[in-house]
Amino acid sequence: MKSYRKELWFNIPTRRGFVNISPQVEACLRESGIQEGLVLVNAMHITASVFINDDEHGLHEDYERWLEELAPHEPIGLYHHNRTGEDNADAHLKRQVMGREVTVAVTKGKLDFGPWEQIFYGEFDGQRAKRVLVKIIGE
Amino acid sequence: MKSYRKELWFNIPTRRGFVNISPQVEACLRESGIQEGLVLVNAMHITASVFINDDEHGLHEDYERWLEELAPHEPIGLYHHNRTGEDNADAHLKRQVMGREVTVAVTKGKLDFGPWEQIFYGEFDGQRAKRVLVKIIGE
Amino acid sequence: MKSYRKELWFNIPTRRGFVNISPQVEACLRESGIQEGLVLVNAMHITASVFINDDEHGLHEDYERWLEELAPHEPIGLYHHNRTGEDNADAHLKRQVMGREVTVAVTKGKLDFGPWEQIFYGEFDGQRAKRVLVKIIGE
Repeated sequence: MKSYRKELWFNIPTRRGFVNISPQVEACLRESGIQEGLVLVNAMHITASVFINDDEHGLHEDYERWLEELAPHEPIGLYHHNRTGEDNADAHLKRQVMGREVTVAVTKGKLDFGPWEQIFYGEFDGQRAKRVLVKIIGE
Repeated sequence: MKSYRKELWFNIPTRRGFVNISPQVEACLRESGIQEGLVLVNAMHITASVFINDDEHGLHEDYERWLEELAPHEPIGLYHHNRTGEDNADAHLKRQVMGREVTVAVTKGKLDFGPWEQIFYGEFDGQRAKRVLVKIIGE
Repeated sequence: MKSYRKELWFNIPTRRGFVNISPQVEACLRESGIQEGLVLVNAMHITASVFINDDEHGLHEDYERWLEELAPHEPIGLYHHNRTGEDNADAHLKRQVMGREVTVAVTKGKLDFGPWEQIFYGEFDGQRAKRVLVKIIGE
């Protein structure tokens, strides 16, 4: 069994945003040389997500509106967590809806994806450098 | 390390629906001959889910009502994504709540489940053929 | 490839609650002797979650309030599932928001975590003994 590990760094200039990270994950897979196995891609921070969906700008606007409805950023004082001096409680909730991680099959050296699957980094408390972990195991 | 891959196809006659796919996943596991490892089961489409919960019809009606409340199908024009000519933006949101994938332990050649765990395909934009990927790695 | 399996048992005295189970999962990893691989940690019950987030009490109060808003326990009769004589339909919904499982990378014999990541057991239908599965594969 072979294993491979890499950290990807992101610094989103706004509080919230979505970035297609499929090319970086594919580059990791090529670098690993692994042909059959599993890739784990996870946010290393608890106010961010890694998820798989469509690379369509309108949909990302829909996610933005919808997540703000489900777990609004304001009023800050709505959240017990923010009494610690933080203002990011909503980000901890939004990340649960969108998820921490994805596991993707590796087949014949490729990410084994359906026709529209793309991997995204979802930031809900940005404006600082944060990491995504790529771990690949297989042969 | 051994690996196994199979695509399962579904064509749900309605827009939304849930199908218990545990028997198909168990058949894959038997076919693989893998005794110890992990099974990844994921929707290959971004308007569908694979999730683990109860095989109880009333609960599935509850999911249907609840997901429609959280992310209603109509009005179609509510969603930026639907300006592309699609009408399935809600399906992309519902799938985030229910999840893309499950990872299940394989122990002594069996899916290592608690008493009521069953694997479901959740369709949110049906009436066409769509796929689920089963990938198993182990020994 | 090596594999390791352990069940962790919890009996939460209230209907809902969150428990940091990171120390138990780390103990499993040490016991396994696995240096590189993946850990799967999943609820074996369909009214409970395993998720990764912050070990901060205020945030857990926020999750409690928010999940009750998204999928309230009462009125019991709101849910078709409860017509079976159960009163836990809300727990099946809450668990979908918080997730069934996490997969964590193992690197150099440690859980490969960002600065604040902690693994939690989330109970939504407690007051009875329930299990979490820890499965580790690697070398």
